[in-house]
Amino acid sequence: MAKKVARKGKKKLSKKYVSFSGRMVMIGFGSIGQGVMPLIFRHIDIKPEQITVISAEDRGGLKELKKFGVTFIRKRITQDNLRQTLDRRVGKGDFVVNLSVEVASTALVEFCQEKGALYIDTCIEPWPGGYTDPNLSVSLRSNYALRENMLKLAPKYRGGPTAVIAHGANPGLVSHFVKKALVNIAKDTGMGAVKPTTREGWAELARDLGVRVIHIAERDTQVSKKPKKVGEFVNTWSIDGFVSEGSQPAEMGWGTHEKGLPADGARHEFGCGAAIYLNRPGLITRVRTWTPLEGPFHGFIITHNESISMADYFTLRQGENATYRPTVHYAYHPCDQAIMSMHECAGKNLHQQKTQRLIVDEITEGRDELGVLLMGHAKGAYWYGSQLDIHEARELTPYNNATSIQVCAPVLSGIIWALENPERGIVEADEMDFDRNLEICMPYLGPVVGKYSDWTPLKDRGGLFPEDLDTNDPWQFKNFRVV
Amino acid sequence: MAKKVARKGKKKLSKKYVSFSGRMVMIGFGSIGQGVMPLIFRHIDIKPEQITVISAEDRGGLKELKKFGVTFIRKRITQDNLRQTLDRRVGKGDFVVNLSVEVASTALVEFCQEKGALYIDTCIEPWPGGYTDPNLSVSLRSNYALRENMLKLAPKYRGGPTAVIAHGANPGLVSHFVKKALVNIAKDTGMGAVKPTTREGWAELARDLGVRVIHIAERDTQVSKKPKKVGEFVNTWSIDGFVSEGSQPAEMGWGTHEKGLPADGARHEFGCGAAIYLNRPGLITRVRTWTPLEGPFHGFIITHNESISMADYFTLRQGENATYRPTVHYAYHPCDQAIMSMHECAGKNLHQQKTQRLIVDEITEGRDELGVLLMGHAKGAYWYGSQLDIHEARELTPYNNATSIQVCAPVLSGIIWALENPERGIVEADEMDFDRNLEICMPYLGPVVGKYSDWTPLKDRGGLFPEDLDTNDPWQFKNFRVV
Ligand SMILES: NC(=O)c1ccc[n+]([C@@H]2O[C@H](COP(=O)([O-])OP(=O)(O)OC[C@H]3O[C@@H](n4cnc5c(N)ncnc54)[C@H](O)[C@@H]3O)[C@@H](O)[C@H]2O)c1
Ligand SMILES: NC(=O)c1ccc[n+]([C@@H]2O[C@H](COP(=O)([O-])OP(=O)(O)OC[C@H]3O[C@@H](n4cnc5c(N)ncnc54)[C@H](O)[C@@H]3O)[C@@H](O)[C@H]2O)c1
Repeated sequence: MAKKVARKGKKKLSKKYVSFSGRMVMIGFGSIGQGVMPLIFRHIDIKPEQITVISAEDRGGLKELKKFGVTFIRKRITQDNLRQTLDRRVGKGDFVVNLSVEVASTALVEFCQEKGALYIDTCIEPWPGGYTDPNLSVSLRSNYALRENMLKLAPKYRGGPTAVIAHGANPGLVSHFVKKALVNIAKDTGMGAVKPTTREGWAELARDLGVRVIHIAERDTQVSKKPKKVGEFVNTWSIDGFVSEGSQPAEMGWGTHEKGLPADGARHEFGCGAAIYLNRPGLITRVRTWTPLEGPFHGFIITHNESISMADYFTLRQGENATYRPTVHYAYHPCDQAIMSMHECAGKNLHQQKTQRLIVDEITEGRDELGVLLMGHAKGAYWYGSQLDIHEARELTPYNNATSIQVCAPVLSGIIWALENPERGIVEADEMDFDRNLEICMPYLGPVVGKYSDWTPLKDRGGLFPEDLDTNDPWQFKNFRVV
Repeated sequence: MAKKVARKGKKKLSKKYVSFSGRMVMIGFGSIGQGVMPLIFRHIDIKPEQITVISAEDRGGLKELKKFGVTFIRKRITQDNLRQTLDRRVGKGDFVVNLSVEVASTALVEFCQEKGALYIDTCIEPWPGGYTDPNLSVSLRSNYALRENMLKLAPKYRGGPTAVIAHGANPGLVSHFVKKALVNIAKDTGMGAVKPTTREGWAELARDLGVRVIHIAERDTQVSKKPKKVGEFVNTWSIDGFVSEGSQPAEMGWGTHEKGLPADGARHEFGCGAAIYLNRPGLITRVRTWTPLEGPFHGFIITHNESISMADYFTLRQGENATYRPTVHYAYHPCDQAIMSMHECAGKNLHQQKTQRLIVDEITEGRDELGVLLMGHAKGAYWYGSQLDIHEARELTPYNNATSIQVCAPVLSGIIWALENPERGIVEADEMDFDRNLEICMPYLGPVVGKYSDWTPLKDRGGLFPEDLDTNDPWQFKNFRVV
C-alpha cells in the first residue's frame, strides 16, 4: 500500500509550484526546519544563496546546509536583538519562515508588516516563559490569549503582506481536512456536491450537517528500540514545544450544544468567546476519542490554536449570541515513549526532564494517524486524515519521520499559497484555500482516508463502575472526558 | 554495590532452614511458581519426588522440572474438579503451595484444613470472573470482600494446620517491612529500642509515632529493548494477575485522621470497617508518592490485600469506635512498558489486550524499588524497602527478574515459617514473625535501605493552576490523589 502511494505521487514529488526571487530567512532549524528545507528546494524555484537560517542552537543538519550552500547564523533571537538581527536581512518582498520556539510570533509579524515581508509560522509562540509565567492568570497563559493578541494586529495590517499564522499539521492542515470532511459528509448524506465560499457558508454547512464535536484525533505509533531512560523525555517532534503547550491549560472551542461548563472550566473575560479553558494543564487531561486504525483510545487535550480558530470560524451568531458552534479540541496520543515521558513529567509536578531524545532515524516501525473526527451528524462519526507510515515517510523525503512530514508539507503549502496570494495580511488556516493546500500536501501524507464509525463516547461505558454520563446526548463534553 | 551485596550473602544463599518429608503440591507454574521452585530446593531439605506441580498451561520451565525430576500435571482446576484432582495428592502434613490465578483461595484453604495440610498463597483469588462480575456490586468485587470471606473461615479452623494467606512481596513482605520501619523510626526519634509483641502493641507504637499514612511505594524501572506492540500488554510479572486486580475498585485502608470520604468513595456495609473503596478501577487511579531513588512520582492505587489487612491490624478501638488507624494503600509504578499498556487498556474501557509479554530474560536494565513509606511521624516520611537491580537479581537465582525475586523470597520464607509453626490456622502476614521472615528474605532483596525524606504531597504544588488542597494537614488523602 505504502509503496503504491509513493509511486503514484512520484511525479508530484518534484513539481515546482512557484518561483521566488526574494530573500528567505528561516528562524529555527530544529526537527521542522530541517524537514522543510529539502521540500522548499524541491518545490519552489529558489537558490540556496537566497536563504539564511538563524537558529539558537546546532540541532543537526548543518552539514547539509553547508552542502546546499545555505548561510547559517547561530544566534538566539530575543526581544532586544530581534530588529538588529533581522534589519539588514529582511526587506520588501522577502519571506520570514519562523520555525523556532521562544520567539514571539506577534513581534515577528509586526516586524514583517513594517518591512513589507511575507511571513509564516506553525504556532503562535510567546517570548520565553510566556507559557508558564506564574504571574500571569491561567486565562492569559492560554492559546486563546495568544491568538487574541495576534488577531488584534489583523485590522491594522489588512491588505498587508501575507502572514500565515499557525500553519503546520495542527494547527494548519487539519483546518483543510475539516472542510474536506464536511464536503464529503454532505455528499454521503445526500446533500449533494456543496462547497461554500464564505465563512458563514462553511459554518452553515457544519450546522446543517449536525456536527456537534470536532476532535483533532491523532495516534502516533512510532517506536524506537532504545528504551526510554529514567529522567528522559522521548518524542517524535520537539520535546520543548510539546512540554510547553502541555503545560498550558487544556482548551476547547466550546460548542453551543454543551449543557454546562465543566466544574474546572472557565470562560475568558475578553475576546471572541469561542473557547473555554480548564484550570489544569493539558499534559494530564485525558479524553476519549477514535481513529480508524487504533479504534477507541484516550488522547490528551493539549491546547492548540486550531481548537479556538476553528470553533471561532464555524460560529454562527444572532446579534451577540452564538447560535451555532461545534466543540473543537485536540485529542492527542503521542508515541508510546512520550506517554511514559508525560507520566514521569506529571509525577514531578510538570518539571521537565533534564534530558530529551527526539526520535527520527532510530524509529523502526509505526505511523502517525492524524486526522479530524467530526461527530453528531447523520452518519455518527467521520474521521478524515493521514495514516502516514514511517517507511513510506522515508521514501518521500529525507530528515523526517511520519510526524514531521505531516507538519512540513503544510509549511511548504503555506509558503506557496502566500507567494500566490501575497497581499492577504494576517490569515489563519481556516481563511485559506483548502483545496490548493491539500493539493500540495497530499503527495506527502501517505494514505489519506475518510471513515465513518458508529463510535460514541458512551459506547461500552458504565459496565463495572457507575459513571456520571449524559445518556441523552452522547456528544456532551462530559461523556468524552476521562476522570 | 550489587556485586558486593551478593558476595556478602553467598553463604546465606545455600543455607537449609528446615526439612520437610511430606508431599508438596504446587498449583500454578507461571512467573512466581518457576521462580520459587529453585529456592525451595536450595533452602528446604526436600526431594524432587515429593513435589507435584499442577498447572493449567505450559508457561515455560517444564524442561527444568523434568530435569529436577518433579512431576508435572497439566490441568485447569475448577470448582467442579478441585476435590477430585487433589484428593489423592494431599493428606495430613502435606503442603499446598498455591501460585495460580483463578482458583479460589478459600476453596483450597477449606480443603487443606479438612485434609490437615499446610497451605500458602500470595493473593486471595476468587474463581474466574470474580473480579469483574457485573452482577456483583462494586463492594463485593473488592479485596475487602475477598478478605472478609477468608477471615470468616478463621475461627472455624483456629489451631488447625497453618494456612499462610497472601504472602508474596505485597501482600506479604511489606507487612514485615512496616514493622521493621516502625522499630527504626522509634529508635531514630528517641523512643529507644522497642519491639511490641502483640497486635495492640504494634498499633500503639504506630499511633505514638504519629504514623498517619502508609504507602506501599514501588517504582519498577526494568526495561526491554523490544518495543511494546500495539495491542500488547507488557509487564514484569503476571499480566492477567495485574489486569485483574487493576480492574477491581481502588481500595484504601482508611485512616482515622481523614477528614472526609472522597466524593467517589464508599464504605462497605459489612466486615471490619478498616477500608473504603472508590467507585473506579485502580488501573486508572493515580496517587502521589515517593521512593528514595525515583523521588516523587505518580503511582496507581491498585487494590491489594495488605491495604486492608495492615489497616485492620493497626486499628485501635474504644468499644466500637476506631480511635487510631493509618491510611494504607498501594502506590505502584510498574515498569514503563506497563504504563503504556495500562494507558492503552484504559483507552479500550479496560478490555485487556489480546497479546501479552512477560519480560524476564529480555530485561537489559533497571530495578524494582519496592518498599513502605510511613508518613506523618516526627521525621516526616520514611521509606524502607528493597532496591533490587536486575543484574544482581540474576546473580541471586535463576528464572527470575527483580520483581519476581521480591515475591519468591517471601513465598519461601512463608513456607519455612509455616513448617516451623505448623498449627496456627489461617494467618495473614501481619500476624507472623517479621524478624524470621526478613532474615530468610534478606539475602534475596539486594540493597535494603531506610531513608527519611521531607517530601509531602503538598511539596511543589499549586504553582501554575489552582488546586483543591488541604494545606493544614499534608497527610489528607485528597492531597495525595491525582485528579
Ligand atoms: N503546527 C504544527 O503542526 C506543529 C508541529 C510541530 C511543531 N510545531 C511548532 O514548530 C516550531 C518548531 O518545532 P520543532 O519541532 O522544529 O522544534 P525544535 O525544538 O526541534 O527546534 C526549535 C528550533 O528553534 C531554535 N530556537 C529556539 N529558540 C530560538 C531563538 N530564541 N532564536 C532563534 N532560534 C531559536 C532552536 O535552536 C531549534 O533550532 C515550534 O513552535 C512548534 O510548536 C508546530
Ligand atoms: N503477593 C505478591 O507480591 C504477588 C506478586 C505477584 C503475583 N502474585 C500472585 O501470584 C499468583 C501467580 O502469579 P504469576 O505471576 O506466577 O502468574 P502467571 O500468570 O505467570 O501464572 C499463573 C499460573 O497459574 C496457572 N493457572 C491459571 N489458572 C489455573 C487453574 N484454574 N488451575 C491451575 N493452574 C492455573 C497458569 O497456567 C500459570 O501457570 C497470582 O495470584 C498473582 O496475583 C502475588
